Amino acid sequence: MKAFQESVLALSGGVGGAKLALGLADVVAPGQLHVLANTGDDFRHLGLHISPDIDTLLYTLSGKANEVLGWGLANETWNVMDALERLRGDTWFRLGDNDLATHLWRTAQLDEGASLLQITDTLARQLSIASHIHPMCEERVSTTVHSEGGDLAFQHYFVREQCKPAVTGFSFEGINQASPNSNVMALLADEAFSTIVVCPSNPFVSVDPILQIPGMWTTLRDSAAPLVLVSPIVSGMALKGPAAKMMLELGVPVTAFGVAQHYCDLYPDLLDYFVIDESDATLATEIASLGVEVAIAPTVMKNRNEKQRLAQFVLDLVG
Amino acid sequence: MKAFQESVLALSGGVGGAKLALGLADVVAPGQLHVLANTGDDFRHLGLHISPDIDTLLYTLSGKANEVLGWGLANETWNVMDALERLRGDTWFRLGDNDLATHLWRTAQLDEGASLLQITDTLARQLSIASHIHPMCEERVSTTVHSEGGDLAFQHYFVREQCKPAVTGFSFEGINQASPNSNVMALLADEAFSTIVVCPSNPFVSVDPILQIPGMWTTLRDSAAPLVLVSPIVSGMALKGPAAKMMLELGVPVTAFGVAQHYCDLYPDLLDYFVIDESDATLATEIASLGVEVAIAPTVMKNRNEKQRLAQFVLDLVG
Repeated sequence: MKAFQESVLALSGGVGGAKLALGLADVVAPGQLHVLANTGDDFRHLGLHISPDIDTLLYTLSGKANEVLGWGLANETWNVMDALERLRGDTWFRLGDNDLATHLWRTAQLDEGASLLQITDTLARQLSIASHIHPMCEERVSTTVHSEGGDLAFQHYFVREQCKPAVTGFSFEGINQASPNSNVMALLADEAFSTIVVCPSNPFVSVDPILQIPGMWTTLRDSAAPLVLVSPIVSGMALKGPAAKMMLELGVPVTAFGVAQHYCDLYPDLLDYFVIDESDATLATEIASLGVEVAIAPTVMKNRNEKQRLAQFVLDLVG
Repeated sequence: MKAFQESVLALSGGVGGAKLALGLADVVAPGQLHVLANTGDDFRHLGLHISPDIDTLLYTLSGKANEVLGWGLANETWNVMDALERLRGDTWFRLGDNDLATHLWRTAQLDEGASLLQITDTLARQLSIASHIHPMCEERVSTTVHSEGGDLAFQHYFVREQCKPAVTGFSFEGINQASPNSNVMALLADEAFSTIVVCPSNPFVSVDPILQIPGMWTTLRDSAAPLVLVSPIVSGMALKGPAAKMMLELGVPVTAFGVAQHYCDLYPDLLDYFVIDESDATLATEIASLGVEVAIAPTVMKNRNEKQRLAQFVLDLVG
């Protein structure tokens, strides 16, 4: 497979998006992939600054992700959590010993005045990752999940409550005071990217926070690089996480069409290509009526090869 | 040995003081020992609030202290430090996995608005400690070590620089805004203590911070309970830590007399009894000339039995 020589920008949340990011990292030339990561689910926990989506990307792209758990690091140990449990501390957010070192390191760096941008860059280099991982912004943006039972901080909804509450909406505190990652904005201003890919991440809690940073989605729209979005919904089910459940609770059609409609309504003219799974081929005409070009591919990525194949498909679409 | 039925207040720093605190805990009736702990060397590190002296007391009084290392917990593991080292993080302050759980728990509790007083109390109960451990105050007091090479935060001096810089003095930032532990002040107001013991801790960086909280030493002086101080200097050497080295650098006689003079100068009429080691018996007259009653005992505590014997001696002095 000939490496794709031009730079690619991928927008991603955590586990679902990181699969395609890994595929893209494999098929582009080293250093040519830039991933713009959601930090709307960052939070302070046990005194530490935790950036779950950035860490998932770091661990996935470095080949250190825990494939068994589906999160965290491979070969993890749990001595601290066991001791915290004996102290009857909060252990609902499972922090492995090795993973904890990342959070301690990041928190120490933040306390010393380093930026999340620098910190993420250094971590990526320490993990020998050739791709660039960019936090969506420096400012603290906090996703709140509005549910029938009341408001929940994102990780409380996602991890502690295991996505059980029925959602009624989302808000991103602090987003209006945030500025898009300056490195990515500079690269966009230089028209450095040949393609912009929105990975199959959760539209509501992974991609919306990125796009809704003031100036972000309009800059992406105005870039000459075509934007390709891969549907996170396949055959009415989410590839990963609570996206389908959320759509059902919000009264949105739980289909790739529902996803396309969400993006076209909120971000007019942003999408150039919308990639749906083969199993959803019958939705193509309806989605095309929203004014986007529809492409059909196998989008379920069960192994490394399928990740690479989808990545190549996305890049070939534009090339 | 008949348990001492009355309440005792002991002032203590870390390892040196905790030895006598353990002896006192053994010889008084359960729950009758109150330890007022230095928090002047508390600090934020890697995002966590660390209270080294309180933790040394917690670990020592619960029988979980690491006797081999002389600090931290027994049966400790170091997975997080190893991982942090791979990230080239700060590992000069060695935090074991089990010890880290204490810091995470404390930091989380502080972030939720709990007081250091409540937190310490809960930790003591979770560790099945019958004695009461009281932080000297709620407010943040930070010991700065003035050295010939410049100012150093206490733990940087103590752990990172291994006490190598020659000291010229000390200051306790925030101390004038601090208030003595309210529980201990209430007990003192009730004349609840039969004896006040100053454990053989470092005068400059362990005991001075406690005594110099506004209102503290005068309240102790005015209490009806006699105050007994055990010299941390024996035969010109510190029982533990850098006290002797500091005295030398400060131009103070490196003897039990130098210690007594320090206290009598700074805190007139505070000391009732001054306990010196048998090996320093020749200093008795000189020390007595400062207006304190001198008692002579074996003060080196190499094992549990010697800790109990010194504790009993101190209590018998007053009784």
